[in-house]
Amino acid sequence: MTQPKKSRTTVKIYGRSYKVVGEEKEDHVKLIANLVDEKMQEIHEVNKSLDTTSLAVLTAINTMNDYIKLKEDFEVLQNLLEEKEE
Amino acid sequence: MTQPKKSRTTVKIYGRSYKVVGEEKEDHVKLIANLVDEKMQEIHEVNKSLDTTSLAVLTAINTMNDYIKLKEDFEVLQNLLEEKEE
Amino acid sequence: MTQPKKSRTTVKIYGRSYKVVGEEKEDHVKLIANLVDEKMQEIHEVNKSLDTTSLAVLTAINTMNDYIKLKEDFEVLQNLLEEKEE
Amino acid sequence: MTQPKKSRTTVKIYGRSYKVVGEEKEDHVKLIANLVDEKMQEIHEVNKSLDTTSLAVLTAINTMNDYIKLKEDFEVLQNLLEEKEE
Repeated sequence: MTQPKKSRTTVKIYGRSYKVVGEEKEDHVKLIANLVDEKMQEIHEVNKSLDTTSLAVLTAINTMNDYIKLKEDFEVLQNLLEEKEE
Repeated sequence: MTQPKKSRTTVKIYGRSYKVVGEEKEDHVKLIANLVDEKMQEIHEVNKSLDTTSLAVLTAINTMNDYIKLKEDFEVLQNLLEEKEE
Repeated sequence: MTQPKKSRTTVKIYGRSYKVVGEEKEDHVKLIANLVDEKMQEIHEVNKSLDTTSLAVLTAINTMNDYIKLKEDFEVLQNLLEEKEE
Repeated sequence: MTQPKKSRTTVKIYGRSYKVVGEEKEDHVKLIANLVDEKMQEIHEVNKSLDTTSLAVLTAINTMNDYIKLKEDFEVLQNLLEEKEE
């Protein structure tokens, strides 16, 4: 694939700004940041005593959990497709 | 499915303890926490001046990005599989 | 919507003419063809030994990748918007 | 975001192999290639006299058209979201 340019995007999450460097487009990074911010808000609603670091760590744990589960499902689907293609 | 019991797992991530309440088994929660801890270390290696909150937020952003990408691939795979089945 | 008339547009891409039949306006088809031609040139710059078919296939792969990524972002944005509206 | 490693994936599209170099995961590249292959087959079904180069170029044009349309819709949605957030 053609080489993407590096982007530097500043996003605001939970009231603080972060610089995100990477190969994703700025719009995409902002969208992802929006999702993270939302999830941190959600966890805050459930437990209002948590500080920002805890909220971010718990958000990362939650998202990693979703990711791992989806990856398992993805692999099952891949195997199914390979069988169909044989 | 049968209702899973709530578990309370204490995990250590980047030198700090967090209590994770949820329906996942303790071993699973620890595994997930391990992955998050690893990702925070990785980001720290690339930018050693970041404080813990930044590391946690950037880890959450990275994981969310991976999740969203996988979700998209999962949907593509589902569509391909459905077409093969027709 | 009113039924669009079929258009037949001849476009020139990478030195060869192609006839594009469809429901898009001629100007639009030419614009799209221009973008494809540009992307083929870009890939050619990176790897000068590729033949026209390879350039076109790699252009299709690149564009499909952009499309799938954008589709995922589009869905995320739709969900965010729905949540705001609730 | 953390730096992804370069991947080299060989994909088979319309009976020919192509090497795709990039930062996307191998599974993802294969999925994208599958979609491109499918689209070439579709266009072939409609016009069986087209040679491989034409099929590849028309597939690129089709995909670019889908991409540009989605991008326009995406921008509309972005504006809507910004208005809601004000």
